[in-house]
Amino acid sequence: MSSLIRLVSDCPPAAEIVDVVVVGLGVAGACAALGAAAAGAETLALERASAGGGTSAMSGGVLYLGGGTALQTACGFDDSPEEMAKYLLASVGDAPDRAKIEAYCEHSVAHYDWLVAQGVPFKPVFYDGVSGEPPTDDGLVWSGSERARPYCDLARPAPRGHVPQLEHQAGPMLMRSLLAAVERSPARVAGDVRIRALVREAGGAIAGVVAESFGEERFVRARGGVVLATGGFVMNDAMLAQHVPLALRCKFRVGAEGDDGSGIRLGVAAGAATLHMDKASISLPATQPWGLKRGVLVDAQGQRFVNEDAYYGRLGELALFQARGRAWLVVDDAIFEKPDYPRRVAAVAETTAELARDLGLPAGALEATLALYNEHAARGEDPVFGKQRAYVAPLVHPPFGAFDCTTDASIYAAFTLGGLHTDADGRVLDPAGDAIPGLFAAGRCTSGLAVGGYSSGLSLGDGSFFGRRAGRSAALAR
Amino acid sequence: MSSLIRLVSDCPPAAEIVDVVVVGLGVAGACAALGAAAAGAETLALERASAGGGTSAMSGGVLYLGGGTALQTACGFDDSPEEMAKYLLASVGDAPDRAKIEAYCEHSVAHYDWLVAQGVPFKPVFYDGVSGEPPTDDGLVWSGSERARPYCDLARPAPRGHVPQLEHQAGPMLMRSLLAAVERSPARVAGDVRIRALVREAGGAIAGVVAESFGEERFVRARGGVVLATGGFVMNDAMLAQHVPLALRCKFRVGAEGDDGSGIRLGVAAGAATLHMDKASISLPATQPWGLKRGVLVDAQGQRFVNEDAYYGRLGELALFQARGRAWLVVDDAIFEKPDYPRRVAAVAETTAELARDLGLPAGALEATLALYNEHAARGEDPVFGKQRAYVAPLVHPPFGAFDCTTDASIYAAFTLGGLHTDADGRVLDPAGDAIPGLFAAGRCTSGLAVGGYSSGLSLGDGSFFGRRAGRSAALAR
Repeated sequence: MSSLIRLVSDCPPAAEIVDVVVVGLGVAGACAALGAAAAGAETLALERASAGGGTSAMSGGVLYLGGGTALQTACGFDDSPEEMAKYLLASVGDAPDRAKIEAYCEHSVAHYDWLVAQGVPFKPVFYDGVSGEPPTDDGLVWSGSERARPYCDLARPAPRGHVPQLEHQAGPMLMRSLLAAVERSPARVAGDVRIRALVREAGGAIAGVVAESFGEERFVRARGGVVLATGGFVMNDAMLAQHVPLALRCKFRVGAEGDDGSGIRLGVAAGAATLHMDKASISLPATQPWGLKRGVLVDAQGQRFVNEDAYYGRLGELALFQARGRAWLVVDDAIFEKPDYPRRVAAVAETTAELARDLGLPAGALEATLALYNEHAARGEDPVFGKQRAYVAPLVHPPFGAFDCTTDASIYAAFTLGGLHTDADGRVLDPAGDAIPGLFAAGRCTSGLAVGGYSSGLSLGDGSFFGRRAGRSAALAR
Repeated sequence: MSSLIRLVSDCPPAAEIVDVVVVGLGVAGACAALGAAAAGAETLALERASAGGGTSAMSGGVLYLGGGTALQTACGFDDSPEEMAKYLLASVGDAPDRAKIEAYCEHSVAHYDWLVAQGVPFKPVFYDGVSGEPPTDDGLVWSGSERARPYCDLARPAPRGHVPQLEHQAGPMLMRSLLAAVERSPARVAGDVRIRALVREAGGAIAGVVAESFGEERFVRARGGVVLATGGFVMNDAMLAQHVPLALRCKFRVGAEGDDGSGIRLGVAAGAATLHMDKASISLPATQPWGLKRGVLVDAQGQRFVNEDAYYGRLGELALFQARGRAWLVVDDAIFEKPDYPRRVAAVAETTAELARDLGLPAGALEATLALYNEHAARGEDPVFGKQRAYVAPLVHPPFGAFDCTTDASIYAAFTLGGLHTDADGRVLDPAGDAIPGLFAAGRCTSGLAVGGYSSGLSLGDGSFFGRRAGRSAALAR
């Protein structure tokens, strides 16, 4: 028997019996607890840290929502579930989960209202600045590649980054509000508890957990089910090395200590299927302020590999997995701006040939790339990668400079996107596609809305939405 | 309980009790049966088709072996386990399994001798032609990227493609020999048998299989263990869509009907971890005859993305996953040759600008790529991608042509590389890294030597090597 599984018959009598056990108290766990409690279930949420919050509380707090939320409407933007679904289906990777995306878009307006009802504040002001995380307390931002090619040709763009009202880092505010809502609910919370194993009936159904606190193990039985909401595995070097080795090169890992894959391992030991364990969100904030989108991002061959106006989630994914972490943003004197994130200048030179030599690029390659780019840019065009006209200008004003966007010198912010295979109701599936009785999951321990092409807010978005659903499903199973 | 798992206590008494049950009778299963029988175990091999062979019998029959085999020595080549390991560690993808690679290289010479002892014939003649699958019955070929950059700078190249003696398709010969060896051994074989479920003790150990034959289910108990050797999942559209969606675009799938992932699903249901489910071997035979390596392979941006002298396993992987199945091999009149594989000519033109227009490439892009390439090629150099001097020549002799290497028009030969996580002894591992008692696996239902950067012969190589080990491990567990 795996050390991650115990048989009910091998356990002492249950120290506690509840309807639903929620494991982990980040955004997915908090919403699972709220969803279970709202369905009338006696709910116990167990968190390994002393208090809830997790990675969600360390995040930028953005929730990717849309379809015409009250916030979008207040800010004067038009959106529909259909356009939102079109964007997500096109942008979130090669194998989007259609059922999840459709459910999410259809109910996104209601989910926003629910979040507000839980006490999460959003200021009805649109911030038209740097993607993702506004430096103000404004409520709505662009947080994806909606206006960049190819997506703008496939779906009508709308800003969908919904940001709780707190300057700079709205994550703490989001989690403070949701944890307060959990506290007001009948759900109970216990901290400093580690889950050592899932407890299984001989027949295969999950009956509860082995919870360890201060060195003591207890069997907590769950009549309805266990909801795993433990986060991803970006803090687990061994799992990264096995599944996403390039992510080990990223200087910045977006995760709390708990993002060590524990819930994924528990689920797999119970017979769950996994999806997209090799996928990660990689943010490369190279084009902030946005004027830097007028630069030209090249790889070690001196070639471009993406339209520079794409969202930094897409830039990072391609820069790491395709360009293998070797990239430079070339600018000229006319478009030079001080980057929002401190960034090493790799080289400055009077000619692009000198610049290329200083960067160690193959002779003539960068010059050829820039000559072609400038030729088209003089007409405001970029037929090669389709960058929007607003960000297209010939780079012809010396001196030329190159910002270092290699993994050695630059921020690449990584977290994992793969995990347990769940359905749109938060049930964990086995490899035959059947639900494992008693086992539910949500958040970054599952494969969710995004399996690539990250837009900010998708993890808090699907964690909160499918967390709530998983809690409800577990409650209904009691 | 998953439909893929039954409890012993829910099964009727065992219809048959043996030491080792082998599931599937391709190269991995045949060698597992031989390994188990050689260790003195009463062995029963069950095959869903009427007879053994599987994908292995439909393959080119190449085994990637080296380190100084008798065949390499007879053909006058020097090799060592260390150089072989260096090449594999550098070439087989981002997350090579070091323990497997080291065991494989260390014992490769002995494994070759064992294959010969089983009756697999190799003609001691080196074929210096098209990679992978010689049109003759010669025994040794180049079957990887050993002589291409970056690998030639990292490990001393040696040909390691060992081909059983049969013209064109040595796979049938390989399997005929191995199945004859199984027949001579004490192991028994039954065909037309499907495995519906693994049978588990309450405690988690695998005790046998539910085998269905002609509509009747029987519980076959295995005292030592079950060896899954069922192949990959390239014939399963739903699994491809979930894990490797781009592979669905490949016109040619290298697989027998049995490659539907059944063994992977059985193992996962039993709590096994998987690795690299998103990885596939993609062969794009665009540069055969080898003179075509002097062409320039470009993507939809008109840019090169690989040194064209790399092995067709590497060309295909990059053409599909990076260039997303849109690629053309540009040649001029001087290097034009009739391709070995029928291939559509996408365009012919007197100038490269016309050619680019006919291909629908962005204005000026192909011309810029070729201008840079030709400038260096005039000196026999390719500083951008490092193609070997022998294949570098300026493309300046009109008319120019482009062979269609898109997924729409060209052969992309695909099979999956991801599967169950096993150790170097063929034991199936759970997510805590512990062996699942009674469960073993080998071949393409496991993640093996190659998780990318495919060289021909690695699958038959690791299937036979680790199959034999898995059979022996199961025998020793009885």
